Amino acid sequence: MLRTKEQYHEDLFAMRPNIFIGGKPVGRDDPRLRPGINVLDITFDLAQTPEWKGLATAVSTVTGAEINRWAHLPQNPQDLLQKQKLIRLGARRAGGCIQRCMGHDAINALAICTREMDDANGTEYHRRFLDYLKVYHEKDLDGCCAQTDSKGDRMKRPSEQSDPDAYLHIKEEREDGIVVSGFKMSITQAAYADEIIVLPTRALIASDRNYAVAFAVPGDAEGMSLITRPVWLRENDKEGAAPFCTYGVSDCVVFFDNVFVPKERVFMCGEWQFGRRLALLFADSHRHSYSGCKPAVSDILCGTTCLAAEANNIANASHVKEKLSEFAGAAELAFAAGVAAAVYGKKTDSGVFFPNEIYANVGRRLTGEMIYHEYNILTEIAGGISVTMPFDEDFEQGKNAEAMKRFIIRNPNLSVEDSLKIWQLVEHIGASSMASWYKIAGVHGGGSPIMETIALNLGYDFEDKKRLARYLAGIDNDLDDSKMRDQIAKIDTQI
Amino acid sequence: MLRTKEQYHEDLFAMRPNIFIGGKPVGRDDPRLRPGINVLDITFDLAQTPEWKGLATAVSTVTGAEINRWAHLPQNPQDLLQKQKLIRLGARRAGGCIQRCMGHDAINALAICTREMDDANGTEYHRRFLDYLKVYHEKDLDGCCAQTDSKGDRMKRPSEQSDPDAYLHIKEEREDGIVVSGFKMSITQAAYADEIIVLPTRALIASDRNYAVAFAVPGDAEGMSLITRPVWLRENDKEGAAPFCTYGVSDCVVFFDNVFVPKERVFMCGEWQFGRRLALLFADSHRHSYSGCKPAVSDILCGTTCLAAEANNIANASHVKEKLSEFAGAAELAFAAGVAAAVYGKKTDSGVFFPNEIYANVGRRLTGEMIYHEYNILTEIAGGISVTMPFDEDFEQGKNAEAMKRFIIRNPNLSVEDSLKIWQLVEHIGASSMASWYKIAGVHGGGSPIMETIALNLGYDFEDKKRLARYLAGIDNDLDDSKMRDQIAKIDTQI
Amino acid sequence: MLRTKEQYHEDLFAMRPNIFIGGKPVGRDDPRLRPGINVLDITFDLAQTPEWKGLATAVSTVTGAEINRWAHLPQNPQDLLQKQKLIRLGARRAGGCIQRCMGHDAINALAICTREMDDANGTEYHRRFLDYLKVYHEKDLDGCCAQTDSKGDRMKRPSEQSDPDAYLHIKEEREDGIVVSGFKMSITQAAYADEIIVLPTRALIASDRNYAVAFAVPGDAEGMSLITRPVWLRENDKEGAAPFCTYGVSDCVVFFDNVFVPKERVFMCGEWQFGRRLALLFADSHRHSYSGCKPAVSDILCGTTCLAAEANNIANASHVKEKLSEFAGAAELAFAAGVAAAVYGKKTDSGVFFPNEIYANVGRRLTGEMIYHEYNILTEIAGGISVTMPFDEDFEQGKNAEAMKRFIIRNPNLSVEDSLKIWQLVEHIGASSMASWYKIAGVHGGGSPIMETIALNLGYDFEDKKRLARYLAGIDNDLDDSKMRDQIAKIDTQI
Amino acid sequence: MLRTKEQYHEDLFAMRPNIFIGGKPVGRDDPRLRPGINVLDITFDLAQTPEWKGLATAVSTVTGAEINRWAHLPQNPQDLLQKQKLIRLGARRAGGCIQRCMGHDAINALAICTREMDDANGTEYHRRFLDYLKVYHEKDLDGCCAQTDSKGDRMKRPSEQSDPDAYLHIKEEREDGIVVSGFKMSITQAAYADEIIVLPTRALIASDRNYAVAFAVPGDAEGMSLITRPVWLRENDKEGAAPFCTYGVSDCVVFFDNVFVPKERVFMCGEWQFGRRLALLFADSHRHSYSGCKPAVSDILCGTTCLAAEANNIANASHVKEKLSEFAGAAELAFAAGVAAAVYGKKTDSGVFFPNEIYANVGRRLTGEMIYHEYNILTEIAGGISVTMPFDEDFEQGKNAEAMKRFIIRNPNLSVEDSLKIWQLVEHIGASSMASWYKIAGVHGGGSPIMETIALNLGYDFEDKKRLARYLAGIDNDLDDSKMRDQIAKIDTQI
Repeated sequence: MLRTKEQYHEDLFAMRPNIFIGGKPVGRDDPRLRPGINVLDITFDLAQTPEWKGLATAVSTVTGAEINRWAHLPQNPQDLLQKQKLIRLGARRAGGCIQRCMGHDAINALAICTREMDDANGTEYHRRFLDYLKVYHEKDLDGCCAQTDSKGDRMKRPSEQSDPDAYLHIKEEREDGIVVSGFKMSITQAAYADEIIVLPTRALIASDRNYAVAFAVPGDAEGMSLITRPVWLRENDKEGAAPFCTYGVSDCVVFFDNVFVPKERVFMCGEWQFGRRLALLFADSHRHSYSGCKPAVSDILCGTTCLAAEANNIANASHVKEKLSEFAGAAELAFAAGVAAAVYGKKTDSGVFFPNEIYANVGRRLTGEMIYHEYNILTEIAGGISVTMPFDEDFEQGKNAEAMKRFIIRNPNLSVEDSLKIWQLVEHIGASSMASWYKIAGVHGGGSPIMETIALNLGYDFEDKKRLARYLAGIDNDLDDSKMRDQIAKIDTQI
Repeated sequence: MLRTKEQYHEDLFAMRPNIFIGGKPVGRDDPRLRPGINVLDITFDLAQTPEWKGLATAVSTVTGAEINRWAHLPQNPQDLLQKQKLIRLGARRAGGCIQRCMGHDAINALAICTREMDDANGTEYHRRFLDYLKVYHEKDLDGCCAQTDSKGDRMKRPSEQSDPDAYLHIKEEREDGIVVSGFKMSITQAAYADEIIVLPTRALIASDRNYAVAFAVPGDAEGMSLITRPVWLRENDKEGAAPFCTYGVSDCVVFFDNVFVPKERVFMCGEWQFGRRLALLFADSHRHSYSGCKPAVSDILCGTTCLAAEANNIANASHVKEKLSEFAGAAELAFAAGVAAAVYGKKTDSGVFFPNEIYANVGRRLTGEMIYHEYNILTEIAGGISVTMPFDEDFEQGKNAEAMKRFIIRNPNLSVEDSLKIWQLVEHIGASSMASWYKIAGVHGGGSPIMETIALNLGYDFEDKKRLARYLAGIDNDLDDSKMRDQIAKIDTQI
Repeated sequence: MLRTKEQYHEDLFAMRPNIFIGGKPVGRDDPRLRPGINVLDITFDLAQTPEWKGLATAVSTVTGAEINRWAHLPQNPQDLLQKQKLIRLGARRAGGCIQRCMGHDAINALAICTREMDDANGTEYHRRFLDYLKVYHEKDLDGCCAQTDSKGDRMKRPSEQSDPDAYLHIKEEREDGIVVSGFKMSITQAAYADEIIVLPTRALIASDRNYAVAFAVPGDAEGMSLITRPVWLRENDKEGAAPFCTYGVSDCVVFFDNVFVPKERVFMCGEWQFGRRLALLFADSHRHSYSGCKPAVSDILCGTTCLAAEANNIANASHVKEKLSEFAGAAELAFAAGVAAAVYGKKTDSGVFFPNEIYANVGRRLTGEMIYHEYNILTEIAGGISVTMPFDEDFEQGKNAEAMKRFIIRNPNLSVEDSLKIWQLVEHIGASSMASWYKIAGVHGGGSPIMETIALNLGYDFEDKKRLARYLAGIDNDLDDSKMRDQIAKIDTQI
Repeated sequence: MLRTKEQYHEDLFAMRPNIFIGGKPVGRDDPRLRPGINVLDITFDLAQTPEWKGLATAVSTVTGAEINRWAHLPQNPQDLLQKQKLIRLGARRAGGCIQRCMGHDAINALAICTREMDDANGTEYHRRFLDYLKVYHEKDLDGCCAQTDSKGDRMKRPSEQSDPDAYLHIKEEREDGIVVSGFKMSITQAAYADEIIVLPTRALIASDRNYAVAFAVPGDAEGMSLITRPVWLRENDKEGAAPFCTYGVSDCVVFFDNVFVPKERVFMCGEWQFGRRLALLFADSHRHSYSGCKPAVSDILCGTTCLAAEANNIANASHVKEKLSEFAGAAELAFAAGVAAAVYGKKTDSGVFFPNEIYANVGRRLTGEMIYHEYNILTEIAGGISVTMPFDEDFEQGKNAEAMKRFIIRNPNLSVEDSLKIWQLVEHIGASSMASWYKIAGVHGGGSPIMETIALNLGYDFEDKKRLARYLAGIDNDLDDSKMRDQIAKIDTQI
């Protein structure tokens, strides 16, 4: 089934109210949530559009029916390449974060890890998960992923925290399910998702056993509060607002207060040995998703900077052109990392084709390191106007309105209206609360650069490089290239 | 005379109302202007404080009386070192831009340039200016500097613009003064300054003659409208707001619509040959001022990042320490550039001691290149919480308030209240509309890095370096070090 | 046919002597040329090794026989992926530049451009070229590419130079061929190549017609002098030298002094309209080749740095690990750019599958910008010893030899011999004349970063980004994503 | 006394031969040492030159006579400013490292620390040291500083090493002196210094007591071997070599094999508590010296790059100008840090005026981080010719010599001879063994960037920044600016 956005809204607004903003309960139809819902709408619209069939949709490996690709389990490199392009396409329309990749990455992590746990322990998580996924596909559900715990003291393990709720954990195991409590934080999209998929956030040891828990609950599960922070622009609800202003995002602290999860929705329960694995499966899949969305963010910043250069009539200055070309580097190197992650990915036992972790990490790290610099380029070329331009109303009313219309024209080829729209876009993109959100999410979403550095320190084959140096130094006589040979063989069969 | 802040307010609120926000006229007592006025208050308070006498005050070269140092004409390297320290001191208290340096830099530029024009042309601008400055000192006035024109098409000279108001210009010259029109933009502080000091913004040629104009007018001069954009935080007007939230800034488009300026307040009138000189005198003096305020901004970012690291309990992580040390580099290299500019400055014919342009420019450029990176460090260490933390009210009211108080504690040594204040500071410093302003002003204020690069391309002694290379290559036989000898001689007499 | 390296040597040493070093003629068996020949040997050996069949070899599209992949015309993305891996494999063994990619890139450029010229003008260059290539494949020849002219005054076009030889040009056109003169410079490998393939270096206009010339000549063609600069290490010819020291390179100024080129070897003759096209085809193909070799250089630097860290016993220091992970980023982002260039490449009319120019350029630029930084990391971690370590003989003879053996041990787990070999490798890799060559070739080979920036400014679809920004700003109502749709369609059929 | 260089040579060549190169004993008149001696000659020549009196010379605080400034104990900020300028002046002439600052920094460290040890323990080191310094001044001696030990396993303390000689240490204490053994490494200038001044290299604990030792010995002390590595250019000993080629450097492993040091030359003997202090006093003074020499290195690189741009006739290209301006930033920010270190330095109890450690460290770190980038700029602008240009002899002899003279001309305004000299300079500066030495010394000399980062983490007043942030957050009510007040007061009295 492919829901329309109207069906999605209907389902959403029928949910039990458990959203809180500023200490007050609000419905899911609160206007401050609407910009985020507008983003999700794009993902439903694309799947309905004939020309995007096959990109925005896929064939379910569970039901055999056509589904929204955001719910798909990739089976081969092409699927990962399609996912990457779909994210870039959607993110461009949304003016940035398309939000729905979280669910995609969460179900893929679970598909793989449940199978691996079953293989190791004879459990039945994978069957349970596939049953769940069947419904997920049939109903075209949208899930967010709640991974990050509030964490408390970062020098202590989950089980050592003075407040046990610092990490979400199992409080009780019953015949028919489990009871969980704890805080998850910085959970994007939770306030307008159908489902919340919960995963552990880090490596665990035996004493952390109760923190090894994964499951899915409806967004309005009993006992769960979504303390929500919407990000919005002053212009969000204006009549005739620019598209960029109609899109936005909300993040939640999700407070689980003795929430019961029925057995069929529990996908990990105490398997602490798989804590790190499941956490990383989500993280690496999500880092691959960034190879689609961050290029879109660069596209947007690049385009906005081009318009600013044009409005300033400096588009041909040599230093401006050099700076514009940096966007090409930022966008396409990140995109290329995603392509290489797809091409050099691997088939897991679950059948899911998983992106290569090294490429997912070098790509994500690059984008995390570049994001502030990209905003810096916009600022350099646009000038100070984004924080000193008078308000919209100054151009509309009062005795100076006519003068202000003269004031705003810089490039004689642009009309007053277009000039104003360009400089307003520059402000909204570069100097608004959304800009703050994008910069900070651009560093931290999916793991900050230091997390990718740690992943690379663990996963990159430094021993291979040392063997090479030892050979060149004359310490070892032979150069073992077997890794490269294996890699080559694998690729040749896949693509 | 040293006004108290109360006297400053009294004078301010008595002015003719010519401020416009959102198309509506408002008084100077509008609460949205107050955060900026609070910043200015610091400059009056410091001068009243016994322990800062001699730093925050100086002895007027015009009246011989004690004046606020912001109105002083530096006479020697020590005066420049004091100015630099005063700016750092004040900017730390204001949580950033102290705003009053603009006036300082404008009067110094005029003191020097009026003398040079008189020497060249036999005019009497310098005497006029000193008369004006006498009153300025006697009344302890605060002036802002209106330099940046709206500029229109940047590929065209002032006199070539289709809209003549794109650059401020002389419309009429009368016996008793001049009539001027045009737009100045991005004028910080204008809405609560006593005086507006107007300077040209660029090099001029003969056909631009009418654009070669400098003068001072009261902030409420007839025919002048201040279309004002206040930057403020959601928390500005809250009871018990943190000091950082009580400070802010406003910028204006200053629209001169046939404003009459009496002769005694006109300091340049048609001397286009001095357009570049006057523009650069202000710019270079202002770039030197940045060697005081930007270190303060780094201090604030550094301290905030330290608090975030502490609240996250990660202050001893190796990568955190390495990043914190970058603030030391950013702050102190910029400060050092200001010190060198003072030590290697020069005495002008006017008696004003002027900072060395090369050091002023390399320092300012460094800060312009670093500012986004410094915010990036704060973001890296603070994590995503600054854009996903629930609103203040969520911690105060509603059914989750108690849970939220548990949620906010990460470092067990910090109280709920302090934890909350720290994370709110992180948001206000790093992800608020003030943060946008500081980043963008950090790039552009006083001239963006590309402007300093141009200044260095013009002013740096590349010929000396080429001579050196030619000597080392064996092309020239002698190495002419006379420049260094002259420089050495000059320093020895000055300091 | 697949020649053995012995056959290659035999052919080489039978050539007419036209090599000059230090003003004196030398044979191709001069020991200073041997390190470069040793590199080429690797390319012959790999093709003979059963386990690398299919990677180091391919099936000729001209003869249908098995050929060395360096002479292959790629037909699909897989061929480009194989080429990239082969280059990385070979470059690792050679301790860096494998040199033979030049010929590969030159024949591919000619295969494409000759077809395009014929299609435009009805010429017969493509047939000629395929005839030539048939022999090239049958004899398993190695060609170098002579593209860079000496250029003279860079502000003047080829035809404006005071010395016409500043660019290679046609002096005479005869029935049976052409006579050419001029200087080509920085031509790697020419001194030990079978063939020299000559291409134009830049865009041309009608008056530059005689500079639009492409052809192939044997390395010992009459009238051609190869003024050769070998790069070698002090240790090159030592008994028992480390593998790294046995490899090296030579570059030539190739002076064409009225060289006759028979018609069948002329592939462009006056088609100035295709000058830029042919120059860029080579450059972009060569930039794609860098996506194979530069990762190998990073592998070598990474491995050497790892060994130095181990020998210093600091491999677990946090800042060391962070720096080591930078090599992973440098190597794999460059490699990923090559993968994306292959996946998103395009089939040309000639049948050759050509790498995507944008990815080839962003990848090559990254490596050009990173190379000095990578050496910096090695230096930071290795310490100053690479330039202060006593000579080898100090460890072998004289009264301090025993003390020196104690001196060299830092990590107690390493023997004297291995310690010495590690520090010698560090010197050879990081502080030798080869290091200088690699740094400078790392910036300039295939075009320096500024050349890729220019290519990106020309080739990147900035209009697409502007349309996107205009849509988000509300200026345009529709978002045209057709480009993305086309791209998607194309990919799906190719891979 | 001010020795002439001839007197210096005479003294040098009369020393006991204890230099070893390649395992063989050589005299101090070995031609491979000459380039280093030529550098020292500059320091003697400058002191003899009337126009540099007062800069290159100073008045001894010990003898009251005129001495070479390199032997002076600075008494005030002006002395430090003069030292900085003298180093820049000398380093420009030497084409880089002037070498003699080591001795300056060593005697200043000893002057301060001996006084502090005496004050703490009632020893008489300071008197001894002043007696030694008296002779040092009277004879105008040149001392090198041997600080860096070979260190062995870096994870172990000195006293834990398996080979006790890994750090220099006291083997025996006798009535009349001490016997010491161990390796010092990377000791620049030792092979042609009159004196070798030995200092500890790191913080020590009680068990390291025997490693707390400082003293001075003549360069040819009994039992001491100088295993020497000269760096030289292929062109060093050519007739008519360019000045740059006549200068060079040698580094030594200094092997102390039971060397007796008479009591009057021992300045620390077991005071392990002062190990770190003495080590840092030298390091920080040396880092301040870098604020003089590194700007000179930037001057040289800048000038060379300017000449290359001119020879390529691209000096007016926008990207070239932008890159050239980076040299101004690198040179003058480093210089400014030295100026600030002088202005904000402090008077020690010994009377020596010592540079501010924070400024010395931020400055030195900047230069260590920039050096590879500066070479990169030279490479970018000069092109690949520096590693592919034929040898000098190719321009002088053989059949292609005339053609090569045509080849080398790019800018028609330059003669063959000047063109050749420029490109040879580019090679010598940017791609020779000296270039390797300068890059690596540029990172490590005086402590690599990570050492300065550690110094800043220890020494920078992060608490002050935290107090500031706590005040702005509303956690603390008062802002304690006393540090700034103290600092201000101190400056005002000093300068």
